[in-house]
Amino acid sequence: MLYFNSDYMEGAYPAILEKLSKINFEKNTGYGEDKYSKSAEEKIKKICGCENARVKFLVGGTQTNAVVIGGILRTYEGVIAADTGHISVHEAGAIELGGHKVITLPNKYGKLMAEEIERYMNTFNGDETNTHMVYPAMVYISHPTEYGTIYTKKELMDIRNVCDKNNMLLYIDGARLGYGIGAENTDVTIKDIANISDVFYIGGTKAGALFGEAVVVTNPNILPHFFTVIKQHGALLAKGWLLGVQFDALFTDNAYFEITKKAVKLACKLKKAFIEKGYKMYIDSPTNQQFVVLENSKMAELSKEVSFSFWEKYDENNTVVRFATSWATTEEDIEKLIDLI
Amino acid sequence: MLYFNSDYMEGAYPAILEKLSKINFEKNTGYGEDKYSKSAEEKIKKICGCENARVKFLVGGTQTNAVVIGGILRTYEGVIAADTGHISVHEAGAIELGGHKVITLPNKYGKLMAEEIERYMNTFNGDETNTHMVYPAMVYISHPTEYGTIYTKKELMDIRNVCDKNNMLLYIDGARLGYGIGAENTDVTIKDIANISDVFYIGGTKAGALFGEAVVVTNPNILPHFFTVIKQHGALLAKGWLLGVQFDALFTDNAYFEITKKAVKLACKLKKAFIEKGYKMYIDSPTNQQFVVLENSKMAELSKEVSFSFWEKYDENNTVVRFATSWATTEEDIEKLIDLI
Amino acid sequence: MLYFNSDYMEGAYPAILEKLSKINFEKNTGYGEDKYSKSAEEKIKKICGCENARVKFLVGGTQTNAVVIGGILRTYEGVIAADTGHISVHEAGAIELGGHKVITLPNKYGKLMAEEIERYMNTFNGDETNTHMVYPAMVYISHPTEYGTIYTKKELMDIRNVCDKNNMLLYIDGARLGYGIGAENTDVTIKDIANISDVFYIGGTKAGALFGEAVVVTNPNILPHFFTVIKQHGALLAKGWLLGVQFDALFTDNAYFEITKKAVKLACKLKKAFIEKGYKMYIDSPTNQQFVVLENSKMAELSKEVSFSFWEKYDENNTVVRFATSWATTEEDIEKLIDLI
Amino acid sequence: MLYFNSDYMEGAYPAILEKLSKINFEKNTGYGEDKYSKSAEEKIKKICGCENARVKFLVGGTQTNAVVIGGILRTYEGVIAADTGHISVHEAGAIELGGHKVITLPNKYGKLMAEEIERYMNTFNGDETNTHMVYPAMVYISHPTEYGTIYTKKELMDIRNVCDKNNMLLYIDGARLGYGIGAENTDVTIKDIANISDVFYIGGTKAGALFGEAVVVTNPNILPHFFTVIKQHGALLAKGWLLGVQFDALFTDNAYFEITKKAVKLACKLKKAFIEKGYKMYIDSPTNQQFVVLENSKMAELSKEVSFSFWEKYDENNTVVRFATSWATTEEDIEKLIDLI
Repeated sequence: MLYFNSDYMEGAYPAILEKLSKINFEKNTGYGEDKYSKSAEEKIKKICGCENARVKFLVGGTQTNAVVIGGILRTYEGVIAADTGHISVHEAGAIELGGHKVITLPNKYGKLMAEEIERYMNTFNGDETNTHMVYPAMVYISHPTEYGTIYTKKELMDIRNVCDKNNMLLYIDGARLGYGIGAENTDVTIKDIANISDVFYIGGTKAGALFGEAVVVTNPNILPHFFTVIKQHGALLAKGWLLGVQFDALFTDNAYFEITKKAVKLACKLKKAFIEKGYKMYIDSPTNQQFVVLENSKMAELSKEVSFSFWEKYDENNTVVRFATSWATTEEDIEKLIDLI
Repeated sequence: MLYFNSDYMEGAYPAILEKLSKINFEKNTGYGEDKYSKSAEEKIKKICGCENARVKFLVGGTQTNAVVIGGILRTYEGVIAADTGHISVHEAGAIELGGHKVITLPNKYGKLMAEEIERYMNTFNGDETNTHMVYPAMVYISHPTEYGTIYTKKELMDIRNVCDKNNMLLYIDGARLGYGIGAENTDVTIKDIANISDVFYIGGTKAGALFGEAVVVTNPNILPHFFTVIKQHGALLAKGWLLGVQFDALFTDNAYFEITKKAVKLACKLKKAFIEKGYKMYIDSPTNQQFVVLENSKMAELSKEVSFSFWEKYDENNTVVRFATSWATTEEDIEKLIDLI
Repeated sequence: MLYFNSDYMEGAYPAILEKLSKINFEKNTGYGEDKYSKSAEEKIKKICGCENARVKFLVGGTQTNAVVIGGILRTYEGVIAADTGHISVHEAGAIELGGHKVITLPNKYGKLMAEEIERYMNTFNGDETNTHMVYPAMVYISHPTEYGTIYTKKELMDIRNVCDKNNMLLYIDGARLGYGIGAENTDVTIKDIANISDVFYIGGTKAGALFGEAVVVTNPNILPHFFTVIKQHGALLAKGWLLGVQFDALFTDNAYFEITKKAVKLACKLKKAFIEKGYKMYIDSPTNQQFVVLENSKMAELSKEVSFSFWEKYDENNTVVRFATSWATTEEDIEKLIDLI
Repeated sequence: MLYFNSDYMEGAYPAILEKLSKINFEKNTGYGEDKYSKSAEEKIKKICGCENARVKFLVGGTQTNAVVIGGILRTYEGVIAADTGHISVHEAGAIELGGHKVITLPNKYGKLMAEEIERYMNTFNGDETNTHMVYPAMVYISHPTEYGTIYTKKELMDIRNVCDKNNMLLYIDGARLGYGIGAENTDVTIKDIANISDVFYIGGTKAGALFGEAVVVTNPNILPHFFTVIKQHGALLAKGWLLGVQFDALFTDNAYFEITKKAVKLACKLKKAFIEKGYKMYIDSPTNQQFVVLENSKMAELSKEVSFSFWEKYDENNTVVRFATSWATTEEDIEKLIDLI
């Protein structure tokens, strides 16, 4: 059986487990105050070009979104997101549990375009002294998006400008950031991400770590008492060094970028093969997730030998499915899959 | 330097890391639907004697308390706890963030006694049709407590009876449950814990796991949609098998109970030495945490060679400090410490 | 100047103020335990044909929605509403403040159709044991809607059936219920509203009261500890008899239905005049709110002598505005307005 | 029957109902944007000596506490209150529903003393970068307290100083503020209240209004978007002028202070009579609430002719009960009661 269900089916980039095993009996300070976390923080700040940022390591993506959004927004504020955004659909109401409305706007291939935000802000009954509407104080985007698509640098800058014009913060969900930075033909670097956003996170869970996400607050003033906010959300890992060790390993010798880039390369090879064999791609994704429209009979046949994700019904006879590569996917896996399709 | 600061300074019981390394490239289903989680669940249900329970694995203690309490209570309900309870003081308001009041009652050596609860319920303006007070729907206790003390079986049964009389659920925080089951002279078994409570958790983070807590809902009806509640709290680990593997290893060959019992034995040996050398114990703890009153000068001297936790000021000249053993503490560590005191 | 901005610009149906003045020095029990509240409750239950219902009086509409939805839903549950629904747009995030997602679906002239709900439920990843989505446990509709439109009895029954099929409760926001019951050509009675919904409210603020909404929980089991829930939401009026007196007066001698019916009659007379004079109605409303498309120049001219509400831009040269009648609107007001248009 | 149960058993100071009746058909702008609210705001700012304050009118006390505290505090912040404070006990968890912990400290006759706050802040693990405790950002006191007692000006200043030292805001709950300003031998004026606190409210419900509380934010920067916060809490009255009219009447010709002062005078006359006849006062209250220890048999006898409030059991044979006067209490009522005791 071949597995292409998701990018979180395997353990970790091997250097991580080796390191954890090696230091298993070391005594470390808890709650992220250890040397590995400090080292990882420094490496990330350097790579992102934001020396004044504050970096904290959390366990998972939904948790990170709840902590960051809940920690930054005031009670009466909400966050704008694409209607396909992770916080809009697949986080079981985690943002609302924290008291905040997710204001959903139409997406374009999974992306939230600056024009949509602008259009909304124009209809927003904007006088703070009398509005009956939730005050939009933050824009949330995912890069890459939940559909594997990526923003261009210009698109990000356009969003930044709308945010500035309306006093909104920009938060970039980077659950799969590595695959975005390593995407085909992208002009967006991790320094751009840091530079354009107010806060973002670098996803580890789906990109080489056992688990973990690194939150980078490029302007720390927007998230005071961050430590307490993390604790209050049940997101403070007692053995914080487990996260430090992982990100320290991933940000050593460019590992994070290399393993994700390799996964993108394999995914694009797969995309090319699908196209050549006459399959219809649901979306033109330049990252590690590929969405294909399969005839239902073909899908049934294929699923005997390959495991992939159901995405949605396309029509009566066809279905959209997702194939995801990961840092652990091999050339051999891809070759076998190409033979089968 | 010797380290007795806490029971979460080291990595994991070695069998855990070995297993994780061994299966690193295995493809596993996410979100706890994997075979390791299922196996661990079965073992735990068997050991606890509650075949109809529902078991879920979460990452940390505060998170577990927020998920369990927030998932069970209705909006208007609160939870009773000792004023020294973890949820009362050291969770940064995680329970309140979920909208629920922690109703704090006086403790007795860290324990919440049935009489206190009864006294409160007598003053509670109890008519549901007109009360202006938070409705107490759950009692929270820790076993062992935050002060290392333990309940007797009779004390637990007395609390259970007060709960029954007042239609309250009983939740036992077992962050250090292993050390409680392995305590000196205890008459409480893990089956008693399961039998007496409505829901409890078996702490892994402080007892052999890298991280992880196993929630056991002995009456699953009280926590419907548990999966979604976990997700909503940002507490659903993508690679859920990481938790499954750990608890599966800990509940194989009685490991969990043996490693915690050993830690208790070493802690009690230390206690005995302290007493023999004329030190004053702040509390008579039969578990892995020992609280000693040190003269400030002695404390300063000792801290050159031993690392321990400041607990609180005792008086002008004396301080309460905590020495904690863990599954990783050795006889040799204890001997060295005894030589120093 | 003529005023048609809204239906809450005047005080109260005169019998109310007369009664309040008459009993001003009477000593009444607080918190709704008074004789007037009891009398009003009995009258409402009788008129609605639901003797087993529980009736409580609250102060305003947003408050009522927050109390009812927040009091009924469990943490992980959300409420489905039209994207134009009051809770979706104009309550400043009151439902989200209580922790619940408002799941918005497309509207049809302000109405949420059964088909839309059904379509959503079909895409809902419905297995309770593994969904990452908010669990839709309630459907919220307004009758009349925010656009003055009304449901037919069949449309309501269709929604009821979708609710039953999916174990969802049905909540009807009746902020302007009187105007709906008194609408042109409606086949929906207040008994139907009570019979079809699980909970609804009868709006007083916009229909003859100084303030106040009467919540009718036709199945009281869904809202236990209702009193405490009200108190917890800051919605318990100390002098509850103020509400009791008002609803008692409104439900004496059919007053509530007569005054709202008269307002509808005047609004429809106005609609007819607009149509006869060649204006374009934005929506065909059979209730007390009329939405007209005005040329901007006409709008400017008219606004010198009439006050009405801006609703939204229609296009570059035209604007949608609202004219609302109320229980206090007179034939004379309408005649004057018709002369002006 | 004589009624001394509470100070909210009657309607309103007569000028209020007269005015409401007079303007019943006037068309007023909604949501507090009317002329009466503006007039009342100006009068209050002048009387309080705080021209730069922002004044908003809300409906009730618990609502006001939830709006003010929830609107000002950030997620991770809590509020310190006496364990007898209204928000600590009798608001059904309204503050916690908003996500904030009420940190309760021991009271002294219902008062929270500066020393207690200071003691707590000394034990608070205060480093913002690592605390696991709720961050105390506000102190809540009631003046008069729930036990009728009042602070001296020096006591208030001491609290202010502790607040300043610890960067905490001071919020004064003035549900019965009129009775406090009019208390026997007080040295605290309403200007002092405004000057010493960051935000406070002037209670109307219990002091002459049908309902209503005037929030005075002396430093408006601490509560941005106040209008939206009010709406979000379901606390925005559609016909806001109902509140404006009431406070405008109460703050015309010193009415608010005169009617409350009279009530205090009658209460103190009653206290004197109790003492002279050998009754034991539970607390020495200089305001409109008097707490008396009654023998149970005496209580039973008295309750045949007088209605009063049960407060708490004193011992087996005695009970604490409350007698409250209000703006509507007459000399005659008091004389009759004195005859009975």
